[in-house]
Amino acid sequence: MRILGVDPGLNRTGFGVVQVEGARCVLVAAGDIRPNPKAGLPLRLAKIHTELAVLADRYQPQVLVLEQAFTHARFPTAAQRMGHARGVICLLAQEKGILLAEYLPTRIKRALTGRGHATKDQVARMVQQWLGAFDPSWSSDATDALALAIAHAHMETNRAALARAA
Amino acid sequence: MRILGVDPGLNRTGFGVVQVEGARCVLVAAGDIRPNPKAGLPLRLAKIHTELAVLADRYQPQVLVLEQAFTHARFPTAAQRMGHARGVICLLAQEKGILLAEYLPTRIKRALTGRGHATKDQVARMVQQWLGAFDPSWSSDATDALALAIAHAHMETNRAALARAA
Repeated sequence: MRILGVDPGLNRTGFGVVQVEGARCVLVAAGDIRPNPKAGLPLRLAKIHTELAVLADRYQPQVLVLEQAFTHARFPTAAQRMGHARGVICLLAQEKGILLAEYLPTRIKRALTGRGHATKDQVARMVQQWLGAFDPSWSSDATDALALAIAHAHMETNRAALARAA
Repeated sequence: MRILGVDPGLNRTGFGVVQVEGARCVLVAAGDIRPNPKAGLPLRLAKIHTELAVLADRYQPQVLVLEQAFTHARFPTAAQRMGHARGVICLLAQEKGILLAEYLPTRIKRALTGRGHATKDQVARMVQQWLGAFDPSWSSDATDALALAIAHAHMETNRAALARAA
Protein backbone atom coordinates (compact mmCIF):
# COMPACT_ATOMS: atom_id res chain seq x y z
CA MET A 1 0.00 0.00 0.00
CA ARG A 2 1.23 3.48 -0.85
CA ILE A 3 0.12 6.40 1.33
CA LEU A 4 0.29 10.16 0.73
CA GLY A 5 0.11 12.40 3.81
CA VAL A 6 -0.65 16.09 3.25
CA ASP A 7 -0.36 19.03 5.66
CA PRO A 8 -2.32 21.83 3.94
CA GLY A 9 -1.37 25.50 3.98
CA LEU A 10 -1.64 28.39 1.51
CA ASN A 11 1.98 29.38 2.13
CA ARG A 12 3.40 25.90 2.44
CA THR A 13 1.73 22.53 1.93
CA GLY A 14 3.81 19.62 3.19
CA PHE A 15 3.61 16.16 1.61
CA GLY A 16 5.04 12.77 2.49
CA VAL A 17 4.74 9.47 0.61
CA VAL A 18 5.46 6.11 2.24
CA GLN A 19 5.23 2.54 1.00
CA VAL A 20 4.00 -0.10 3.45
CA GLU A 21 6.00 -3.34 3.21
CA GLY A 22 4.76 -5.83 5.78
CA ALA A 23 5.13 -4.11 9.16
CA ARG A 24 7.64 -1.61 7.74
CA CYS A 25 7.16 1.88 6.30
CA VAL A 26 9.60 2.83 3.56
CA LEU A 27 10.17 6.45 2.62
CA VAL A 28 9.25 7.23 -0.99
CA ALA A 29 9.26 11.04 -1.08
CA ALA A 30 8.71 14.10 1.08
CA GLY A 31 8.81 17.86 0.62
CA ASP A 32 6.77 21.03 0.27
CA ILE A 33 4.63 22.82 -2.25
CA ARG A 34 5.30 26.54 -1.85
CA PRO A 35 2.90 28.85 -3.70
CA ASN A 36 4.19 32.35 -4.39
CA PRO A 37 3.19 34.31 -1.24
CA LYS A 38 2.64 37.41 -3.40
CA ALA A 39 0.22 35.61 -5.73
CA GLY A 40 -3.55 35.84 -5.29
CA LEU A 41 -5.66 33.10 -3.73
CA PRO A 42 -6.77 31.43 -7.02
CA LEU A 43 -3.18 31.12 -8.31
CA ARG A 44 -1.94 29.73 -4.99
CA LEU A 45 -4.71 27.14 -4.90
CA ALA A 46 -3.99 26.17 -8.52
CA LYS A 47 -0.30 25.68 -7.64
CA ILE A 48 -1.22 23.31 -4.77
CA HIS A 49 -3.73 21.45 -6.96
CA THR A 50 -1.37 21.10 -9.94
CA GLU A 51 1.66 19.98 -7.93
CA LEU A 52 -0.36 17.46 -5.92
CA ALA A 53 -1.73 16.08 -9.20
CA VAL A 54 1.85 15.56 -10.42
CA LEU A 55 2.74 13.79 -7.15
CA ALA A 56 -0.39 11.61 -7.34
CA ASP A 57 0.43 10.59 -10.93
CA ARG A 58 4.08 9.92 -10.11
CA TYR A 59 3.61 7.95 -6.87
CA GLN A 60 0.13 6.47 -7.39
CA PRO A 61 -0.98 6.48 -3.73
CA GLN A 62 -4.12 4.51 -2.76
CA VAL A 63 -4.83 6.74 0.25
CA LEU A 64 -4.52 10.46 0.97
CA VAL A 65 -4.33 11.29 4.69
CA LEU A 66 -5.30 14.65 6.23
CA GLU A 67 -5.65 15.88 9.76
CA GLN A 68 -9.34 16.03 10.53
CA ALA A 69 -10.71 19.56 10.19
CA PHE A 70 -11.42 20.81 13.66
CA THR A 71 -12.43 24.08 15.20
CA HIS A 72 -9.58 26.51 15.68
CA ALA A 73 -11.97 28.62 17.76
CA ARG A 74 -9.22 31.13 18.51
CA PHE A 75 -8.15 31.46 14.88
CA PRO A 76 -11.32 31.25 12.75
CA THR A 77 -9.84 33.29 9.88
CA ALA A 78 -6.78 31.04 9.71
CA ALA A 79 -9.09 28.00 9.84
CA GLN A 80 -11.13 29.34 6.92
CA ARG A 81 -8.02 30.16 4.87
CA MET A 82 -6.65 26.68 5.51
CA GLY A 83 -10.08 25.34 4.51
CA HIS A 84 -9.46 26.73 0.99
CA ALA A 85 -6.26 24.67 0.60
CA ARG A 86 -7.94 21.64 2.17
CA GLY A 87 -10.82 21.98 -0.31
CA VAL A 88 -8.63 21.69 -3.42
CA ILE A 89 -6.75 18.76 -1.83
CA CYS A 90 -10.01 16.87 -1.17
CA LEU A 91 -11.07 17.67 -4.74
CA LEU A 92 -7.79 16.24 -6.07
CA ALA A 93 -8.34 13.01 -4.10
CA GLN A 94 -11.77 12.66 -5.73
CA GLU A 95 -10.45 13.48 -9.22
CA LYS A 96 -7.64 10.91 -8.93
CA GLY A 97 -9.77 8.21 -7.28
CA ILE A 98 -7.66 8.27 -4.10
CA LEU A 99 -9.38 7.30 -0.83
CA LEU A 100 -9.42 10.12 1.74
CA ALA A 101 -8.62 9.26 5.38
CA GLU A 102 -8.91 11.83 8.19
CA TYR A 103 -7.69 11.60 11.78
CA LEU A 104 -7.72 13.94 14.74
CA PRO A 105 -4.25 15.31 15.59
CA THR A 106 -4.31 13.53 18.97
CA ARG A 107 -5.00 10.20 17.26
CA ILE A 108 -2.03 10.71 14.90
CA LYS A 109 0.28 11.53 17.80
CA ARG A 110 -0.94 8.59 19.85
CA ALA A 111 -0.44 6.17 16.94
CA LEU A 112 3.14 7.39 16.47
CA THR A 113 4.37 8.08 19.98
CA GLY A 114 1.82 6.46 22.31
CA ARG A 115 0.87 9.92 23.60
CA GLY A 116 -1.92 12.10 22.25
CA HIS A 117 -0.18 15.30 23.29
CA ALA A 118 3.36 14.59 22.10
CA THR A 119 5.49 17.59 21.10
CA LYS A 120 6.50 18.33 17.50
CA ASP A 121 10.04 17.14 18.33
CA GLN A 122 8.80 13.82 19.70
CA VAL A 123 6.72 13.29 16.54
CA ALA A 124 9.72 14.15 14.33
CA ARG A 125 11.92 11.68 16.21
CA MET A 126 9.33 8.91 15.78
CA VAL A 127 9.05 9.69 12.05
CA GLN A 128 12.85 9.26 11.83
CA GLN A 129 12.71 6.01 13.83
CA TRP A 130 9.85 4.49 11.79
CA LEU A 131 11.43 5.35 8.45
CA GLY A 132 15.06 4.73 9.44
CA ALA A 133 15.67 7.91 7.45
CA PHE A 134 15.60 11.61 8.05
CA ASP A 135 16.45 14.53 5.84
CA PRO A 136 17.36 17.71 7.76
CA SER A 137 16.06 19.75 4.81
CA TRP A 138 12.47 18.59 5.49
CA SER A 139 10.24 21.38 6.76
CA SER A 140 8.01 20.82 9.79
CA ASP A 141 5.10 20.53 7.33
CA ALA A 142 6.83 17.77 5.36
CA THR A 143 7.59 15.94 8.64
CA ASP A 144 3.97 16.34 9.79
CA ALA A 145 2.78 15.00 6.43
CA LEU A 146 5.04 11.93 6.82
CA ALA A 147 3.69 11.49 10.36
CA LEU A 148 0.15 11.35 8.91
CA ALA A 149 1.13 8.73 6.34
CA ILE A 150 2.99 6.58 8.90
CA ALA A 151 0.19 6.82 11.47
CA HIS A 152 -2.33 5.67 8.87
CA ALA A 153 -0.07 2.73 7.92
CA HIS A 154 0.30 1.82 11.60
CA MET A 155 -3.46 1.93 12.24
CA GLU A 156 -4.20 -0.10 9.09
CA THR A 157 -1.66 -2.75 10.14
CA ASN A 158 -3.25 -2.94 13.59
CA ARG A 159 -6.73 -3.20 12.10
CA ALA A 160 -5.57 -6.03 9.82
CA ALA A 161 -3.93 -7.87 12.75
CA LEU A 162 -7.08 -7.52 14.86
CA ALA A 163 -9.20 -8.79 11.96
CA ARG A 164 -6.94 -11.85 11.60
CA ALA A 165 -7.07 -12.53 15.38
CA ALA A 166 -10.87 -12.30 15.44
CA MET B 1 -19.48 42.20 -19.71
CA ARG B 2 -20.82 38.95 -18.30
CA ILE B 3 -20.63 38.38 -14.53
CA LEU B 4 -21.03 35.18 -12.48
CA GLY B 5 -21.90 35.62 -8.81
CA VAL B 6 -21.43 32.59 -6.53
CA ASP B 7 -22.65 32.01 -2.95
CA PRO B 8 -20.60 29.00 -1.76
CA GLY B 9 -21.91 26.22 0.46
CA LEU B 10 -21.29 22.48 0.76
CA ASN B 11 -25.03 21.78 0.89
CA ARG B 12 -26.12 24.41 -1.61
CA THR B 13 -24.02 26.72 -3.77
CA GLY B 14 -26.05 29.48 -5.39
CA PHE B 15 -25.09 31.01 -8.74
CA GLY B 16 -26.32 33.94 -10.78
CA VAL B 17 -25.19 35.14 -14.21
CA VAL B 18 -25.94 38.63 -15.52
CA GLN B 19 -25.03 40.45 -18.71
CA VAL B 20 -24.23 44.17 -18.45
CA GLU B 21 -25.74 46.16 -21.32
CA GLY B 22 -25.00 49.86 -20.87
CA ALA B 23 -26.41 50.80 -17.48
CA ARG B 24 -28.71 47.74 -17.46
CA CYS B 25 -28.22 44.28 -15.97
CA VAL B 26 -29.92 41.50 -17.91
CA LEU B 27 -30.60 38.14 -16.29
CA VAL B 28 -28.85 35.24 -18.02
CA ALA B 29 -29.22 32.37 -15.54
CA ALA B 30 -29.60 31.63 -11.84
CA GLY B 31 -29.96 28.54 -9.68
CA ASP B 32 -28.25 26.20 -7.27
CA ILE B 33 -25.71 23.41 -7.25
CA ARG B 34 -26.85 20.85 -4.66
CA PRO B 35 -24.29 18.19 -3.76
CA ASN B 36 -25.73 15.01 -2.24
CA PRO B 37 -25.82 15.76 1.52
CA LYS B 38 -25.06 12.08 2.23
CA ALA B 39 -21.91 12.12 0.05
CA GLY B 40 -18.44 12.65 1.50
CA LEU B 41 -16.55 15.93 1.33
CA PRO B 42 -14.43 15.08 -1.78
CA LEU B 43 -17.48 14.08 -3.83
CA ARG B 44 -19.43 17.18 -2.79
CA LEU B 45 -16.52 19.44 -3.73
CA ALA B 46 -16.13 17.66 -7.07
CA LYS B 47 -19.85 18.23 -7.76
CA ILE B 48 -19.49 21.98 -7.11
CA HIS B 49 -16.31 22.16 -9.22
CA THR B 50 -17.73 20.18 -12.15
CA GLU B 51 -21.07 22.01 -12.32
CA LEU B 52 -19.40 25.43 -12.06
CA ALA B 53 -17.06 24.40 -14.89
CA VAL B 54 -20.10 23.60 -17.05
CA LEU B 55 -21.65 26.99 -16.19
CA ALA B 56 -18.38 28.79 -16.95
CA ASP B 57 -18.09 27.06 -20.34
CA ARG B 58 -21.74 27.71 -21.18
CA TYR B 59 -21.95 31.38 -20.13
CA GLN B 60 -18.30 32.51 -20.55
CA PRO B 61 -18.22 35.07 -17.70
CA GLN B 62 -15.28 37.47 -17.51
CA VAL B 63 -15.63 37.93 -13.74
CA LEU B 64 -16.54 35.62 -10.84
CA VAL B 65 -17.78 37.49 -7.74
CA LEU B 66 -17.62 36.14 -4.18
CA GLU B 67 -18.34 37.62 -0.80
CA GLN B 68 -15.02 38.41 0.81
CA ALA B 69 -13.99 35.71 3.29
CA PHE B 70 -14.39 37.16 6.74
CA THR B 71 -14.19 35.91 10.27
CA HIS B 72 -17.31 34.15 11.46
CA ALA B 73 -15.83 34.23 14.98
CA ARG B 74 -18.92 32.59 16.40
CA PHE B 75 -18.98 29.80 13.80
CA PRO B 76 -15.36 28.88 13.05
CA THR B 77 -16.22 25.31 12.01
CA ALA B 78 -18.85 26.53 9.58
CA ALA B 79 -16.34 29.09 8.26
CA GLN B 80 -13.76 26.39 7.67
CA ARG B 81 -16.27 24.09 5.95
CA MET B 82 -17.40 26.93 3.71
CA GLY B 83 -13.69 27.61 3.05
CA HIS B 84 -13.49 24.18 1.35
CA ALA B 85 -16.24 25.10 -1.14
CA ARG B 86 -14.73 28.55 -1.62
CA GLY B 87 -11.35 26.94 -2.36
CA VAL B 88 -12.58 24.86 -5.29
CA ILE B 89 -14.51 27.87 -6.66
CA CYS B 90 -11.37 30.05 -6.58
CA LEU B 91 -9.47 27.20 -8.25
CA LEU B 92 -12.11 27.01 -10.99
CA ALA B 93 -11.76 30.76 -11.65
CA GLN B 94 -8.01 30.29 -12.10
CA GLU B 95 -8.43 27.22 -14.34
CA LYS B 96 -10.93 29.02 -16.59
CA GLY B 97 -9.05 32.33 -16.69
CA ILE B 98 -11.92 34.19 -14.99
CA LEU B 99 -11.06 37.25 -12.91
CA LEU B 100 -12.00 36.90 -9.22
CA ALA B 101 -13.64 39.87 -7.47
CA GLU B 102 -14.38 39.88 -3.74
CA TYR B 103 -16.47 42.32 -1.72
CA LEU B 104 -17.45 42.59 1.92
CA PRO B 105 -21.16 41.80 2.48
CA THR B 106 -21.82 45.38 3.66
CA ARG B 107 -20.33 46.73 0.43
CA ILE B 108 -22.61 44.48 -1.65
CA LYS B 109 -25.69 45.58 0.28
CA ARG B 110 -24.75 49.24 0.07
CA ALA B 111 -24.20 49.00 -3.70
CA LEU B 112 -27.63 47.44 -4.16
CA THR B 113 -29.82 49.15 -1.59
CA GLY B 114 -27.79 52.16 -0.37
CA ARG B 115 -27.63 50.58 3.09
CA GLY B 116 -24.79 48.34 4.36
CA HIS B 117 -27.09 46.52 6.75
CA ALA B 118 -30.09 45.88 4.52
CA THR B 119 -32.20 42.78 5.25
CA LYS B 120 -32.29 39.74 2.97
CA ASP B 121 -35.78 40.79 1.82
CA GLN B 122 -34.59 44.28 0.88
CA VAL B 123 -31.72 42.78 -1.12
CA ALA B 124 -34.09 40.35 -2.88
CA ARG B 125 -36.45 43.22 -3.81
CA MET B 126 -33.53 45.21 -5.26
CA VAL B 127 -32.39 42.19 -7.26
CA GLN B 128 -35.90 41.95 -8.71
CA GLN B 129 -35.96 45.69 -9.46
CA TRP B 130 -32.53 45.74 -11.14
CA LEU B 131 -33.25 42.73 -13.31
CA GLY B 132 -36.90 43.46 -13.98
CA ALA B 133 -37.31 39.72 -13.41
CA PHE B 134 -37.80 37.41 -10.51
CA ASP B 135 -38.33 33.67 -10.32
CA PRO B 136 -40.05 32.52 -7.12
CA SER B 137 -38.22 29.19 -7.47
CA TRP B 138 -34.85 30.88 -6.79
CA SER B 139 -33.35 29.90 -3.45
CA SER B 140 -31.97 32.58 -1.13
CA ASP B 141 -28.49 31.46 -2.25
CA ALA B 142 -29.33 31.98 -5.92
CA THR B 143 -30.74 35.44 -5.07
CA ASP B 144 -27.62 36.29 -3.05
CA ALA B 145 -25.43 35.16 -5.96
CA LEU B 146 -27.40 37.44 -8.33
CA ALA B 147 -26.99 40.28 -5.81
CA LEU B 148 -23.20 39.78 -5.96
CA ALA B 149 -23.17 39.88 -9.76
CA ILE B 150 -25.42 42.98 -9.93
CA ALA B 151 -23.44 44.82 -7.24
CA HIS B 152 -20.21 44.20 -9.14
CA ALA B 153 -21.81 45.49 -12.36
CA HIS B 154 -23.05 48.58 -10.52
CA MET B 155 -19.63 49.33 -9.01
CA GLU B 156 -17.88 48.80 -12.34
CA THR B 157 -20.33 51.16 -14.08
CA ASN B 158 -19.69 53.79 -11.38
CA ARG B 159 -15.93 53.36 -11.68
CA ALA B 160 -16.13 53.81 -15.46
CA ALA B 161 -18.33 56.93 -15.08
CA LEU B 162 -15.90 58.44 -12.56
CA ALA B 163 -12.98 57.69 -14.87
CA ARG B 164 -14.77 59.45 -17.77
CA ALA B 165 -15.58 62.47 -15.56
CA ALA B 166 -11.96 62.79 -14.39
